[in-house]
Amino acid sequence: MSKTKVLEKPLRPRATIGILGGGQLGRMLASAAARLGFKTHIYSPKGDNPAFDVATHVTEATYENETALTSFINAVDVVTYEFENVPSETAQFLSVRKPLFPDPNALAVTQDRLKERIFLRDLGAEISPFAAIDSIDALKLEAGKIAGGAVLKTRRFGYDGKGQAKLASADDADAAWDKVGRARSILEHFVPFTKEVSVIVCRDQVGHTRTYAVTENLHENHILAVSRAPADIDPQTAVSARALAVKIADALDYVGVLGVEMFLVERNGDTEILINELAPRVHNSGHWTLDAAVTDQFEQHIRAITGHPLGDTHRIADAEMHNLIGDAAESVGRFLMEPRVKFHHYGKAEAREGRKMGHATRILPLSKR
Amino acid sequence: MSKTKVLEKPLRPRATIGILGGGQLGRMLASAAARLGFKTHIYSPKGDNPAFDVATHVTEATYENETALTSFINAVDVVTYEFENVPSETAQFLSVRKPLFPDPNALAVTQDRLKERIFLRDLGAEISPFAAIDSIDALKLEAGKIAGGAVLKTRRFGYDGKGQAKLASADDADAAWDKVGRARSILEHFVPFTKEVSVIVCRDQVGHTRTYAVTENLHENHILAVSRAPADIDPQTAVSARALAVKIADALDYVGVLGVEMFLVERNGDTEILINELAPRVHNSGHWTLDAAVTDQFEQHIRAITGHPLGDTHRIADAEMHNLIGDAAESVGRFLMEPRVKFHHYGKAEAREGRKMGHATRILPLSKR
Repeated sequence: MSKTKVLEKPLRPRATIGILGGGQLGRMLASAAARLGFKTHIYSPKGDNPAFDVATHVTEATYENETALTSFINAVDVVTYEFENVPSETAQFLSVRKPLFPDPNALAVTQDRLKERIFLRDLGAEISPFAAIDSIDALKLEAGKIAGGAVLKTRRFGYDGKGQAKLASADDADAAWDKVGRARSILEHFVPFTKEVSVIVCRDQVGHTRTYAVTENLHENHILAVSRAPADIDPQTAVSARALAVKIADALDYVGVLGVEMFLVERNGDTEILINELAPRVHNSGHWTLDAAVTDQFEQHIRAITGHPLGDTHRIADAEMHNLIGDAAESVGRFLMEPRVKFHHYGKAEAREGRKMGHATRILPLSKR
Repeated sequence: MSKTKVLEKPLRPRATIGILGGGQLGRMLASAAARLGFKTHIYSPKGDNPAFDVATHVTEATYENETALTSFINAVDVVTYEFENVPSETAQFLSVRKPLFPDPNALAVTQDRLKERIFLRDLGAEISPFAAIDSIDALKLEAGKIAGGAVLKTRRFGYDGKGQAKLASADDADAAWDKVGRARSILEHFVPFTKEVSVIVCRDQVGHTRTYAVTENLHENHILAVSRAPADIDPQTAVSARALAVKIADALDYVGVLGVEMFLVERNGDTEILINELAPRVHNSGHWTLDAAVTDQFEQHIRAITGHPLGDTHRIADAEMHNLIGDAAESVGRFLMEPRVKFHHYGKAEAREGRKMGHATRILPLSKR
């Protein structure tokens, strides 16, 4: 395997940042990059690419198109991505030619649920009990152990509840196996948690890390609905959660923003933190930082990948972010009338059901927490 | 004169906003528009156009190119501008075809210092004593009245101290007349002021207005150096200053953001407010709102011109904005290391002396003021 490129010195304004993926995360990354004086070049397959609207340059091509990838990599100074399903061959192809962050190894771990869980287990992080499932027989065997329910998740390409099937008992095995397309999966046994929280951690090229206040998340239909910062949890748990995120970022030798999703579980009067999932990118539960932190997660990611020091992660205010799913973002007037609310519309062409179309952040008085 | 177009209903996300001018104000307007889901189309003559980097579409052509203007106007849903020196013929040509805000009448008043002063005087606003100067003889006559100094300013096309000449007495008349290029001008007599402040006011298409906290401004070499919000002035003066800005916006039947520059003068123990200048656009002294107000001035302008209600102008924090002039913005690393500082780089190609290259805003604890 060829050696991946590193950045020899911090990029100056007017350098060009390549971003793989044209969705809302790419869009907000591009805007943050522009605020620091960088140009952007978005690479994304044909489709609705709202990030194209705010980018300096765009390439619409598949991730397998070597001609297009070659032109792209020659036109940029550094590459990043807005989602974890970039094909590893694409990441490799690019990373031997120009610096790519987070690097292909971090991507490889986090884009495969099984590799990710083995990594977390080896690190000593608590995770829910799980098993690798490669066949219906394996599923039936493991499903026999289900106590409080379980969920079958494909190892790759899942997001927002896609590629997932719930099982109450072994009786659900056949249906679940069909629902995930008989793809290689893991079966996770449910753990009764009291809260879902997340930590947005960023790590720069020197290895410095910064975290934001722990965020409390509410999901509806497997999609993030609301994030509140700071989470209403005891201070010691907040410190432990942030420390755990730093430990994970360090172990991955990570560069950029990493979203660490966690479950809080009460056991014998103590709060335990289980890692649910890692997202090797800016994360939906960090969108509140756009409006209520000194440095937002998008700028933070751009700082890290361009070789600059990380920014101040302090809150300016407390915040509550509401995702606008499907046609919820169409009531533009309503959101624009709300006092102390910042409205973000992603400019997507079609408001399909379950699609993230925008978000609205309520600015709350700064708490001491 | 043909009737100017009006907006029949609020624009929906994905509508296209046309912006005349490709500088940093156009750039920040385009980013604000994108945050609300709008596409942007920037029209600007050939040159360094940093706004092009973040726009959906761009046209590089002169303001006299009717073919280019026609293609542009057919491609947008509404038009605005980032600077007051748009030729009035261009504004007229566009405004009869698509809604243009602020409308050509407001532009005509504010792009001519003499018209602006007559408008302000007729409105009953206090202004410094002035005279219209169309010849060297007129200048010599008026300069004979100089007591505490005066400044000769061209009626049109001046900004950041360009097109201005100071006079201590009538002896300076010839040199001053040459310095302003013998252009039609006004002579303003100095008034000893204690502070320079400004009010950013926004007015929507219904006639609703909102103002931001009064900002205190420090200039160096005729260029804004620092803005502090809120200004350190007594509460009654702050209320009067904001009321005056509203009165001016109402009288102009203005739509969009208007910058109102003021001098505070102490007379007989009272604070009097003199209007220095109007800027029919987003204003440098309002840049702090990007990082320390619920709705920033750029989004506010976009809301107004697209027919949406105005946003909340409350501060989330106090703020101190420093302009980065010439090569000051090149010390990127220094600014990125500062805690509680937001750094903005405009991505301009060349850091010429006196050129605004970026700004940095220090976030301060929210005061009660």
